[in-house]
Amino acid sequence: MITTERLRAFLHPRSFALIGASDKSTFSALVHRNLTEAGHADRTYLINRRGGEVHGRPAYPTCAAVGEPIDLAFVMVPAAAAPDAIRDSAAAGARGVLVLGSGYAETGEEGRARQDELVALADELGIVLLGPNVLGFVNVAAGVPAMALADPPTVPGNVALISQSGASCGAMKDFAALAGVGLSHVITVGNEAMVTVGHLIDCLVDDDATDAIAVFMEGVRDPAVFERAARRAAAVGKALVILKAGRSELAARAAASHTGALVGDDRVVDAVFERLGVIRVDTIEDMLVTAGVAAHTGPLRRPGLGVVSISGGACDIIADLAQDAGVELPELSADTVRRLAEVMPDFGAAHNPLDITGAAIMNPELWRESVAAVGDDPGVGVVVAVNSLPWREDGRPFYGQRFVDAIGAGMAECKVPAIYLTQVTQPIGAQTRAVLDSGGVAHVVPGLRLGVDAVARVARWSARRELDADAPRPGVPRPGVATVPGVRLPGTGPLSEVDARELLAAAGVPVVPARHVHSGAAAAEAVTGFGGPAAMKIVSPDIAHKSDLGCVRLGVAAGDAAAAYEEIVRAVGAVGGARLDGVLVSPMRPPATELLVGVTRDPDWGLMLAVALGGVLVEVLDDVALTPLPVSAERARTLLDGLRGAAVLHGVRGGPTADLDRLAEVIAAVGGLAAALGPELESLEINPLRVAGAEIEALDALIVRNGG
Amino acid sequence: MITTERLRAFLHPRSFALIGASDKSTFSALVHRNLTEAGHADRTYLINRRGGEVHGRPAYPTCAAVGEPIDLAFVMVPAAAAPDAIRDSAAAGARGVLVLGSGYAETGEEGRARQDELVALADELGIVLLGPNVLGFVNVAAGVPAMALADPPTVPGNVALISQSGASCGAMKDFAALAGVGLSHVITVGNEAMVTVGHLIDCLVDDDATDAIAVFMEGVRDPAVFERAARRAAAVGKALVILKAGRSELAARAAASHTGALVGDDRVVDAVFERLGVIRVDTIEDMLVTAGVAAHTGPLRRPGLGVVSISGGACDIIADLAQDAGVELPELSADTVRRLAEVMPDFGAAHNPLDITGAAIMNPELWRESVAAVGDDPGVGVVVAVNSLPWREDGRPFYGQRFVDAIGAGMAECKVPAIYLTQVTQPIGAQTRAVLDSGGVAHVVPGLRLGVDAVARVARWSARRELDADAPRPGVPRPGVATVPGVRLPGTGPLSEVDARELLAAAGVPVVPARHVHSGAAAAEAVTGFGGPAAMKIVSPDIAHKSDLGCVRLGVAAGDAAAAYEEIVRAVGAVGGARLDGVLVSPMRPPATELLVGVTRDPDWGLMLAVALGGVLVEVLDDVALTPLPVSAERARTLLDGLRGAAVLHGVRGGPTADLDRLAEVIAAVGGLAAALGPELESLEINPLRVAGAEIEALDALIVRNGG
Repeated sequence: MITTERLRAFLHPRSFALIGASDKSTFSALVHRNLTEAGHADRTYLINRRGGEVHGRPAYPTCAAVGEPIDLAFVMVPAAAAPDAIRDSAAAGARGVLVLGSGYAETGEEGRARQDELVALADELGIVLLGPNVLGFVNVAAGVPAMALADPPTVPGNVALISQSGASCGAMKDFAALAGVGLSHVITVGNEAMVTVGHLIDCLVDDDATDAIAVFMEGVRDPAVFERAARRAAAVGKALVILKAGRSELAARAAASHTGALVGDDRVVDAVFERLGVIRVDTIEDMLVTAGVAAHTGPLRRPGLGVVSISGGACDIIADLAQDAGVELPELSADTVRRLAEVMPDFGAAHNPLDITGAAIMNPELWRESVAAVGDDPGVGVVVAVNSLPWREDGRPFYGQRFVDAIGAGMAECKVPAIYLTQVTQPIGAQTRAVLDSGGVAHVVPGLRLGVDAVARVARWSARRELDADAPRPGVPRPGVATVPGVRLPGTGPLSEVDARELLAAAGVPVVPARHVHSGAAAAEAVTGFGGPAAMKIVSPDIAHKSDLGCVRLGVAAGDAAAAYEEIVRAVGAVGGARLDGVLVSPMRPPATELLVGVTRDPDWGLMLAVALGGVLVEVLDDVALTPLPVSAERARTLLDGLRGAAVLHGVRGGPTADLDRLAEVIAAVGGLAAALGPELESLEINPLRVAGAEIEALDALIVRNGG
Repeated sequence: MITTERLRAFLHPRSFALIGASDKSTFSALVHRNLTEAGHADRTYLINRRGGEVHGRPAYPTCAAVGEPIDLAFVMVPAAAAPDAIRDSAAAGARGVLVLGSGYAETGEEGRARQDELVALADELGIVLLGPNVLGFVNVAAGVPAMALADPPTVPGNVALISQSGASCGAMKDFAALAGVGLSHVITVGNEAMVTVGHLIDCLVDDDATDAIAVFMEGVRDPAVFERAARRAAAVGKALVILKAGRSELAARAAASHTGALVGDDRVVDAVFERLGVIRVDTIEDMLVTAGVAAHTGPLRRPGLGVVSISGGACDIIADLAQDAGVELPELSADTVRRLAEVMPDFGAAHNPLDITGAAIMNPELWRESVAAVGDDPGVGVVVAVNSLPWREDGRPFYGQRFVDAIGAGMAECKVPAIYLTQVTQPIGAQTRAVLDSGGVAHVVPGLRLGVDAVARVARWSARRELDADAPRPGVPRPGVATVPGVRLPGTGPLSEVDARELLAAAGVPVVPARHVHSGAAAAEAVTGFGGPAAMKIVSPDIAHKSDLGCVRLGVAAGDAAAAYEEIVRAVGAVGGARLDGVLVSPMRPPATELLVGVTRDPDWGLMLAVALGGVLVEVLDDVALTPLPVSAERARTLLDGLRGAAVLHGVRGGPTADLDRLAEVIAAVGGLAAALGPELESLEINPLRVAGAEIEALDALIVRNGG
């Protein structure tokens, strides 16, 4: 059991053994250099079974031979020798091991067996194992560069970085350094045989040195642990920013199955991340800058971005980027405009983004006044000041120091978080940082696009946290979520539509009226009873795709009903072994907006509810909104609003406006039924759900059981 | 008349006068320092009417007093004194002036008058005037930093940079330096009173030192000159990469008018840029990196991107980014896979992106072999090698030099352009450049996203150039463009629908049959003649919005036609002064796909043709494709394919597939009519154009004349 306490101890080792230390090993040389340069030389022991001298120091044949306690062992021997190395380190008191080599699960079944063996051994010995196929970690705050990485970060910051990729980790910490994003931890996880990303997030949520967590991953190894950790991060306001690569590949794989074609694995991840309050990004730069901004600002009280710039061009670029990213640029209040008019009498009405023009070169106080005024605006939740910074580390004094000073003074007066933004991506080196420190500027983002996109994500995350104040907590009933008593579904495969309709109706989902008939005469009587042409569909637990087999007739008049009944029976007969349980007769409905509401089971994340616009739009737009269960009516409403074709529901071309509140309740009821069925349910699909204003009805339903 | 010859001379001055030179002026100090540091001190003359000493050198009271010829004068005196300064410089032989101060058109009407006066004076004196409200230019290739800019670029490259913004120009040249994008020229244009961006592009197309042109602008000052220059750039394969800011603001402004709500000013710019082969970008970083890539690669022979990387994580990120950007990552050919298997026997089948794994650390030759093999693949048009580079300018030798050498050797064997790509955005300083030079690597892009997006744009631009081999050349008839003899449209305002239908039919646009009747009886007879319910619409040159006024009846049976006629006549009577010219009777058509095809007049760019999906989709998707005239059938086809809802035309849900070739011909015929009407046309709208397979018909048409 990996607990936060054990992981915290693991991340704070005080003595080290490099097992398999060798002058020929790059890993060994890097780890040794890092630990030595960080001042751990006298508690770093080199282990080589031949003894002798390594890295210019005497080596020990075993950990046991050291005679001093060892906290953390680097296992750098071939896979076959790893178990002995772990036993040796345990004997010397090690509580943690890093297995750096490859040759484990990433190579196939044989390697996986070796890996499982290591985990079982570590478990038995009470040791925490990171990896295998890992480069290690840097606890920057504690000054422990326990990692085979060149130039590990040394100046602590408040963003923790976790990477599944070792090869890309160097680029990540390099960009963090370049962009002025301070790191508290850098942790590679390799194959996650024992310690997973979820465990580490959970531990870092409680780490005082960490205010936001950035993760590079290609997949979630342990969904349950990850989910719990992500919820805890959201609850305490530490942003979890994840670059999950492999979208395109996953999309292709997912498209193989029918459900997948509509849903797609990666969309499930997107939906889960959205639900958990995870911020998803597409590049390393965005990951680190966004985490840096979130760590600096924390959750924003308001989404509005206030911009102050000396360049009209930058204002225009920001306005465009903000529109693309969905960032709100609120108009300044009358009070703010008056306040600005006092300090900038020559300019017209002040707008956001605010161009203070070259006048600020003559009068740097304009910077202070305008940053403070915009930061005080009731619509503004975060302020950025756009200005240049030096980027060459040439020791020359910065001619613009007085502007930085004025901006810093203005930021100090702000009641909301403030960020210094450069026009282009540029390195924030030591000299640049000194310019900012001298001006009292706490946070900088290099580049308009990185900055605007990061603010957009943090603002959205902040709002999502509010929305999810009613997020699911196990065992706690919440208003707005339909609850259905537990239902049993014995058997396997599809239910007949008659049974599916009953379950839905009992759960509060309106279904089109129907009569279940077993003869042509009864069918004709039913059609007459509905007062007009009717739809006739086979009832059979063996036939899921009714239309394909000629087992559905639409617009049948009373006079034709008996004949239609016989035709359906004959069509069923053509399907070998299909049971017939009569025919369902329903009234025809006039055309209206149609939705698809479905629930499918994801192997990692369990039941997911999907809502899509039916008819032409689903094919034209490929427009599906997904969410994990449970689904409150409020959540369902958000899903509907998120559809690209949502305008259809709001009534275009004089069509009726859908009763969105009622529709959201119906969708929540579907989710409630699915949640109640729980493990018994494989999938549920209402297609279509007809929506004509407040008239909402399931016209067709299919429920498939998970039993078997 | 601004000619290339005059501009070229302007950009190559050999002697300089700083009129208004003063120790107190930042402009003066910067220009003086730049020219002095570039070795022009002995041909740089400081002019101050009080004489004395400026910048530690003797000043002259006038240019005339210098006694030496002056090529270029910097006018840094207040606006009121500028005319005298220009006269003085002309007397000393100046062929060009830079007017640096503000107080001209950017301040209002009075300033505009001052500006017009300067232009008239410069014209009279035969002087080229850049600005006013300008910072000047740097001719990097010629070593002339004639600009009030700190740290002007000194190492020449092959990208020319033109900026309407002076304030942002510093950030632009800084990022160019950081990203390793070499500049041939940096030119700010200020108010473009005489020399416009178009003039400069035209000049740089003929500049041997320039292979691509990057432009920051907020609007096109002189569309005709710009258009000609852009066409010339495309023709010679010099990419024109433009960051046009102000999309969001313009969109808002444009939405004010009815046409604008559908079309929008900025969409017109987009359509014109697309037509002219301009690459449009949203950030300064993208502008410079894309121009750098295009200058390095030139037009690509094939769009496919081949990727070689040592990091699986980078491969995944690139695959995702490529999918987003629309970059093709072709599967490797069987030959390439075999060739790679020989050098990488341990790995499975090779894929693109190609992960050569850590094995390349032991065997750098893997880099050479794989870059060369991928570059040789028949599907690949450009290769990128993803690897790290040092970014600290600390003088330490780069441990990875041998990898850079191997990559450079592989690139040298490639038959297609090759680019070195770092995983993250990082500075390409002198030391990094030395590492690349030593390895023979010609071009680098820092950061996966910048690189993939740039390749996407250059590939698209390359393909567009091919498509536009049949681009319009004045006076040259081309196949596929409907030609209509010149048509006169005397009068002003809307044509009656009868006249509009005649014009369309004559131009080859199919229109629904109709009879023009002048009595209820004739209407009834017409309906009977069409064999079913009919549509009846008023004919009046005074009523454009017929439906709104009750002047349209749909589904009228023969028996109701006479009454409907009378009702329409009464409805017209309610409109004061509207002339009635009978009623048009047409057969009703069954529902089908409907398009809107319209032509409107843009004040800058002339007639623009718009195609949109009708019905629900146009409102849900806000989906309009635009292009300047003329429109070939091929071009029309591209427009149709570009609609977000294009799937509707390809036949969804078993609906008929539109005959896209025929549809494209019809749209081209509409464009042909509009082009033939030319200045006589204000707007033309077919709404709807009904499309049912190969049945294509205009059901309603409105043509408005431009006369008056």
